[in-house]
Amino acid sequence: MPTSEKEGGTTGLRRTAEYQPPRSWRSWLIGRPLRTADAADQAIGKSIGLAVFASDALSSTAYATDEILFVLAAAGAVAFVYALPISLAIVALLAIVTLSYLQTIHAYPGGGGAYIVARDNLGEFPAQLAGAALLTDYILTVSVSVASGMAQLTSAYPSLFPYRVPVAVGMVLLMMVVNLRGVRESGAILAIPSYFFLAIMFLTVGSGLTQYLMGGLGVVENPPHLGKEPIMQSVTLFLVLHAFSNGTTALTGVEAISNGVTAFKEPRSRNAGITLIWMSAILGTLFLGITFLAGKIAAIPSEAETLISQLARTTYDGRGVLYLCTIAATTLILIMAANTAFAGFPRLSALLAADGFLPRPLTYRGSRLVYSRGIIALALIASILIVLFQASVNALIPLYAIGVFLSFTLAQAGMARRWKKVGRLAPGQEAQERGSTLRYEPRWALKMVINGFGAFCTAVVMLIFAVTKFHDGAWLVILLVPVLVAMFSAIHSHYRDLAAHLSLEQYGGPPRISRQRVILPLSGVHRGTLAALRYARTLSDDITAVHVSTDQAESERLRLKWESWGDGVRLVVLDSPYRLFLEPLLSYIQEITAQRQPNEIITIIVPQFVPRLWWHNLLHTQTAMLLRLMLLFKPGIVITDVPYQIE
Amino acid sequence: MPTSEKEGGTTGLRRTAEYQPPRSWRSWLIGRPLRTADAADQAIGKSIGLAVFASDALSSTAYATDEILFVLAAAGAVAFVYALPISLAIVALLAIVTLSYLQTIHAYPGGGGAYIVARDNLGEFPAQLAGAALLTDYILTVSVSVASGMAQLTSAYPSLFPYRVPVAVGMVLLMMVVNLRGVRESGAILAIPSYFFLAIMFLTVGSGLTQYLMGGLGVVENPPHLGKEPIMQSVTLFLVLHAFSNGTTALTGVEAISNGVTAFKEPRSRNAGITLIWMSAILGTLFLGITFLAGKIAAIPSEAETLISQLARTTYDGRGVLYLCTIAATTLILIMAANTAFAGFPRLSALLAADGFLPRPLTYRGSRLVYSRGIIALALIASILIVLFQASVNALIPLYAIGVFLSFTLAQAGMARRWKKVGRLAPGQEAQERGSTLRYEPRWALKMVINGFGAFCTAVVMLIFAVTKFHDGAWLVILLVPVLVAMFSAIHSHYRDLAAHLSLEQYGGPPRISRQRVILPLSGVHRGTLAALRYARTLSDDITAVHVSTDQAESERLRLKWESWGDGVRLVVLDSPYRLFLEPLLSYIQEITAQRQPNEIITIIVPQFVPRLWWHNLLHTQTAMLLRLMLLFKPGIVITDVPYQIE
Repeated sequence: MPTSEKEGGTTGLRRTAEYQPPRSWRSWLIGRPLRTADAADQAIGKSIGLAVFASDALSSTAYATDEILFVLAAAGAVAFVYALPISLAIVALLAIVTLSYLQTIHAYPGGGGAYIVARDNLGEFPAQLAGAALLTDYILTVSVSVASGMAQLTSAYPSLFPYRVPVAVGMVLLMMVVNLRGVRESGAILAIPSYFFLAIMFLTVGSGLTQYLMGGLGVVENPPHLGKEPIMQSVTLFLVLHAFSNGTTALTGVEAISNGVTAFKEPRSRNAGITLIWMSAILGTLFLGITFLAGKIAAIPSEAETLISQLARTTYDGRGVLYLCTIAATTLILIMAANTAFAGFPRLSALLAADGFLPRPLTYRGSRLVYSRGIIALALIASILIVLFQASVNALIPLYAIGVFLSFTLAQAGMARRWKKVGRLAPGQEAQERGSTLRYEPRWALKMVINGFGAFCTAVVMLIFAVTKFHDGAWLVILLVPVLVAMFSAIHSHYRDLAAHLSLEQYGGPPRISRQRVILPLSGVHRGTLAALRYARTLSDDITAVHVSTDQAESERLRLKWESWGDGVRLVVLDSPYRLFLEPLLSYIQEITAQRQPNEIITIIVPQFVPRLWWHNLLHTQTAMLLRLMLLFKPGIVITDVPYQIE
Repeated sequence: MPTSEKEGGTTGLRRTAEYQPPRSWRSWLIGRPLRTADAADQAIGKSIGLAVFASDALSSTAYATDEILFVLAAAGAVAFVYALPISLAIVALLAIVTLSYLQTIHAYPGGGGAYIVARDNLGEFPAQLAGAALLTDYILTVSVSVASGMAQLTSAYPSLFPYRVPVAVGMVLLMMVVNLRGVRESGAILAIPSYFFLAIMFLTVGSGLTQYLMGGLGVVENPPHLGKEPIMQSVTLFLVLHAFSNGTTALTGVEAISNGVTAFKEPRSRNAGITLIWMSAILGTLFLGITFLAGKIAAIPSEAETLISQLARTTYDGRGVLYLCTIAATTLILIMAANTAFAGFPRLSALLAADGFLPRPLTYRGSRLVYSRGIIALALIASILIVLFQASVNALIPLYAIGVFLSFTLAQAGMARRWKKVGRLAPGQEAQERGSTLRYEPRWALKMVINGFGAFCTAVVMLIFAVTKFHDGAWLVILLVPVLVAMFSAIHSHYRDLAAHLSLEQYGGPPRISRQRVILPLSGVHRGTLAALRYARTLSDDITAVHVSTDQAESERLRLKWESWGDGVRLVVLDSPYRLFLEPLLSYIQEITAQRQPNEIITIIVPQFVPRLWWHNLLHTQTAMLLRLMLLFKPGIVITDVPYQIE
């Protein structure tokens, strides 16, 4: 309806009628499309935010204490007394990391986390490193958590074991669809199991502590055996550090909120910050509570039974309903930890894509206002990993967590650098730097020390991780991160190159075209050819019809037919004694191009009949398509298909 | 070099410089390209013709007698006396079939066999039936012979068993390459094992007969046990017929020469005919000789040892060099039987394609003057069958031979019909019918009876085949042939439809184009866009630039940029609140098309930058390609990509 066009400037017209997409099967699967203007309605509050972004972090309480005790067991059960101090140290580290990310969230209300902080304060290379580390870890989070959920499920129902890979992939695809529906809806779906887990864990830990204070807490009945006979080594600093680094898996997922600030309702930073504090407080409390109670009930780390299970059956006096609820909630939260990655990966890849480090199409927000391509990419890559590693947690877990600590280190180092810059400002002064505002802060030195110390601690943890798990598979990540960084650079240089070549700065405009020369390849003289000839006539009077001859008699017939139908247009017959078609034509076009005038353009007009049914195309050599592919790279040549529809 | 163009008529120019293809890896693999004019040099004589077209037929002497005795064994060893009469009947049938095909070869010097005979004398449907039956059987010939060759090989070297599928596929691909080199070269390669087989078989059968006449022929020492304990049934007519039909597998491959007449040197029909007589004579002699001697040495049919093996170790007194040569030659000829299909399938599919029943590109002769696409198609389909059936002869063999007998029946019925037409001619009279000449022939009635009787016999054999092997897999072929016929019809109706729609008969010429309306979709204003705008300028003054807006601020920037660079061309901005790009553009184009004037054409000019490296395309949404796919089916619209090369 051109009547709905109105003037929008001297040369601009704006159409007021907006395009409404028709309903389709996609609406049924992921919900009706949302307008760009509806983005604000899709923002989430603190309670759903906790469910969306915290399940990864909170789920680590299900195994972090086990990881510490496994290492300490090398020095015998007597070494278990070190578990509580180590846990306190980890909670202190958690506090430092939380503090650092709180500052990040307030400094960067546009979201970002490690990648943005590193980019703005440390430079391009550390930023790429942080991006590569986080992307790797998000993918592994999905694979590891789904695989560990499957492991819980198959230990309860061993008959499912042969189907674990398809079931795991099915779960990933289900999670993909849920996330394609949008953060708000997926958050609402996920809130139930998350809060169920929190409630049951607080009940378990709470009643355990109450029984301890009342003096009624017993020890584990029939504790499992230690996995392997310990080689009674003494408690060394290395052993304690190793246990500490193993326990820091509790911190994985803490960075998720800082990457997802934009998903929150306004005031974004405040809401995201409060959610982060809540998450860290819950995580720290549960982790300490479990470690403390594990010591009191004399729990034994074992692959046969988790500490959570030992704790639950001690506090609930056997395997009753509450025990089963605890196990079910733990299984659920482990699987759902994958969802944190589904919230984080697409946002981070969109950020990287916007900066030109990943393909730009990743910045596109789909019909439900989520970065649908990133969600689909994550689901596909994680599924491939699950298939390759046959959904085995033991094979995947050594790859995990190095990336997180690399990103922690970079984020905190970036924040420390930032405080240093803040320290150079005069009181009350502000400075703009890239996307964020530097504001004077009296306690900048203290904050810088805290962040610097945090960076140092997380760097140490990362190094211990890399060394102790190198042979088990960590080498793969250590190899993958540089490969990703190299890919980012290659993509970035392409976009920069492209922008430079397309830029209008100091550009005088394209050369005037004063002459069109038209080449019309013919395989026969029919209605399609004549339609193409008619079209060619509107472009130029300088038309050459070209026929590649593989059969003398046939080309003679074509020549005679052209004499009566060809409208007097010059026909060139190229003999092809080796029955090739494309090659002689290309070499002829090459010759014509070589003698091209400066302001002349050569248009190849290819008659193309369009069959009624798609499979009919299989019955014809796709000459037009091949010709286009061959000529696309040659300057000064334009190809036009003139379609002729067979009705 | 336009100087080499010379006038070839009022509108025609012929270029004398011929296109010479450059050397490439393909020349190394399949030989240097051959000119169309070299075709005569590629024709083969009688001795190579025998090697190329007879290996399938001759190889059946290796198992035909076994097949008869296997059935007779159901009535005990006493029934083996029926083997010789049955073999005589089969040889009589062979003589009838040979006679029929001799007449075919002389009537159709252009080649053809069952398909051409049925097409010219029975009509389109029987022709399609014959074509489908033969194509199916050619494919099965490759799969079955390579699989049976592998079975011989793996019974000698059981350690090869796990690799039988890749080795078999490798053999098929090797045969493909050999055949792509051309009939002449592949014939020369194949002549050695074929003649080696003939020599050794005549030696074996000859020395056996000599020993028998001299009275020195013993019986088989340690004969193998009968495969399964016979359920002693009496010798019924059905049993004899069943044994007869089983033995007629000896006839598979006889039709190959009639399909390949054009591969022979001139005089083609005479050379092909003599080769056919030679082949049938050798086949009949060896088959009768083996059956006769098998009875004399009291050979036992068994899956553990073939009759050839029993015969060879009886005549050569144990497993010496000559025995091993016999086994090796048999194995080789079994594998090489596949080569007959490689000679027949591409020719037949080219014939079908020329008649519009298969995709036309199958008529294209590759650089070595063979129908390379047919060769490659056969290799691929046969390889897929080998993989699906895991190279198992037992699984494949029931599918085999029905097709051959269906085509025999149709060919002979067609010839009988032809004699009837000949009978209506006056003495000395000639009549042209389609491709062949009907010539008066005094003994037409006798010939008609012979062909009619042959058609009846082969039809009976086919029916017995279909009934006795239905459950074992023959149903698949009985299902496949109609599916193929349906496919032929669908393809044929497409080509007929296309020809009618493209025909210039009673065509007044395409509508004059008096007006061009140009639409220029823009995603940004850059050098590529401006090059496209410059090109659009040469087509029309009625240009509309269209921008789909998903971001208000960005489209405002674009509008301002267009004001300074857009050369005064009208810009329409389409709001897309759901962030879709293609759909709003298509709906706008749809609107414009709806109000198109009769002689107006709409050209969509799509600016397309061409990156330096192919993988860079992965970094961009391929809008131009999608747009083309969407608009190809809409009449009155032409799409032109204006490429802008990034150097």
